[in-house]
Amino acid sequence: MRLEEIGEFGFIKKISRGCLIRADSIVKAIGDDAAAFVTASDELTLVTTDLLVERVHFMMHGISGFALGHKSLAVNLSDIAAMGGTAREAFVSIAIPKNCPIDYLEDFYDGMKSLASEFDVNILGGDTTGSKADLVINIAVVGSVPEDEMLCRDKARPGDVVFSTGFLGDSRAGLYLILNEIVAGTKGLEELKSTHLMPKPFLREGRFLARRPGLHAAIDVSDGLSSDIGHIAKESSVGVRLYSDKIPLSPGLIEFCERFDLDPVEYALAGGEDYTLLCTISPDRMDSVARDYLETFKEPLYPIGEIIQDKRMEIIGLDNKVRSLSPRGWDHFKL
Amino acid sequence: MRLEEIGEFGFIKKISRGCLIRADSIVKAIGDDAAAFVTASDELTLVTTDLLVERVHFMMHGISGFALGHKSLAVNLSDIAAMGGTAREAFVSIAIPKNCPIDYLEDFYDGMKSLASEFDVNILGGDTTGSKADLVINIAVVGSVPEDEMLCRDKARPGDVVFSTGFLGDSRAGLYLILNEIVAGTKGLEELKSTHLMPKPFLREGRFLARRPGLHAAIDVSDGLSSDIGHIAKESSVGVRLYSDKIPLSPGLIEFCERFDLDPVEYALAGGEDYTLLCTISPDRMDSVARDYLETFKEPLYPIGEIIQDKRMEIIGLDNKVRSLSPRGWDHFKL
Repeated sequence: MRLEEIGEFGFIKKISRGCLIRADSIVKAIGDDAAAFVTASDELTLVTTDLLVERVHFMMHGISGFALGHKSLAVNLSDIAAMGGTAREAFVSIAIPKNCPIDYLEDFYDGMKSLASEFDVNILGGDTTGSKADLVINIAVVGSVPEDEMLCRDKARPGDVVFSTGFLGDSRAGLYLILNEIVAGTKGLEELKSTHLMPKPFLREGRFLARRPGLHAAIDVSDGLSSDIGHIAKESSVGVRLYSDKIPLSPGLIEFCERFDLDPVEYALAGGEDYTLLCTISPDRMDSVARDYLETFKEPLYPIGEIIQDKRMEIIGLDNKVRSLSPRGWDHFKL
Repeated sequence: MRLEEIGEFGFIKKISRGCLIRADSIVKAIGDDAAAFVTASDELTLVTTDLLVERVHFMMHGISGFALGHKSLAVNLSDIAAMGGTAREAFVSIAIPKNCPIDYLEDFYDGMKSLASEFDVNILGGDTTGSKADLVINIAVVGSVPEDEMLCRDKARPGDVVFSTGFLGDSRAGLYLILNEIVAGTKGLEELKSTHLMPKPFLREGRFLARRPGLHAAIDVSDGLSSDIGHIAKESSVGVRLYSDKIPLSPGLIEFCERFDLDPVEYALAGGEDYTLLCTISPDRMDSVARDYLETFKEPLYPIGEIIQDKRMEIIGLDNKVRSLSPRGWDHFKL
């Protein structure tokens, strides 16, 4: 079936099914000029939005509709996670080129609904329109957080331990495999691809961490470790020292870097789209939080460095030499 | 100056100035993973979002950056107006092709900020990214409304008077002049163009109407009169009867239709992007609301028909004959 056969309103009707996961507090869902809902009066409202453009953020032949739906929502949920919040309502705008298969679009909505359902998020509205060239997706997510638990970029303090909630660099490696159409062949390499295509939003982990005393700053790793720790340092007016031997590297990334003769630490530093949480915490709290975290999520926290007073970014190499660290992540407009 | 010279973060810094109009209740504006703010605990939260795509919704040579900024925000404010709400926070996503002049983008943000400032709306966040082909803009607006004053599409009742808050068809005529590069030459035709390029969001009028007892249903005219009254009829499970001789036509539209040998009523019915409010009201309330409205806004309300019990749409012609009315507005996917 083609889009033009069912029309805009037929399409909206088709995709509206299964969008309302949590009906309490919702007064108007899809179908009026705006959605209307009750927000928790004792919490701050959070809003984040992300735009994904074909040929810039994804290639349609390189990602299934389902994975694209998952990812488009996941990157927004990750922003709410980085604020320590709970995600609540999602608004999905999509510009669809004429030749886009309707099956792909249905898979896209299925991928989104599957993730929304996992995190109790409603898809409450959006906009559907045509596009002359590229498939374009914008999602805005509304969430909430108790004011005294909100995690920000500008609260890091000298002495804080810096940690990541997961491996770094995998997504970039997965993207390399996909773009170069390399058949993975091993479980480790295959996992790099799925890390890139179906990133995990650390929402439950973000809420858990936000409630811990001593947790100061947080960001999700979207631009890449070196860039994102740079955002924390800049916003908090502090510096940072990372340790090469502590950067968490997955077995898949190590295998990948051996195969393509790359330095895995360099690769992880300049990665992007990892969507792990990067946090800073009072050093006396690190051990107990890491212990509770491991018990709750069966995953470790990875301490990778510390916040320093001097506003400089440095990294201690495997040879114990100090090197200057510069942001090498993604900038959409730089050459 | 070109975008790649200042980079993504330089650009964000440049456009962030003047985005915070109303700082009270804002805890985090642009610069963290999400914006954070306090919402009024005694009101419902409203969210709407609209996606504008180059070559589908606008041609860059046909609209100035300033007008595009105005319009992109106005269409969202109009949705909040149609709910009877107050607009509060805007989130602007933009995908920018490499060759897009930075002056055009600055004008775009100026146009948006100018309208935001008029209606006390903050630009509180967004996303900036590259695009391979078209300039793409998505804006999400958060607003609020007291629950018992919210205007919806599904509350029209048989006997209600249907009215518009302004002329219909002007925007479509303006678009025709722009697309065909016709020099307007007269004040009337020139106004059609500016109605299309810089639509007025009826926010204050929407709030005024929402507070009036007897005001039942509302929608903003974006798809066109015949389509949008159809949305009200369908959602309210009622029918509608319009009167050709009551459709409000501007002197400019009449001049336009004479010049191009068109039927102005037909033109207004199948218009689009008028962004007037189309409301239904208890017939015994119409006169007093129209009187107060005229006194407050120095503009009349235009009664154009009535809601009927039978689920059919009809229009009484200038010849007094009854004709069936079908939605002739815009569908993004139909041929």
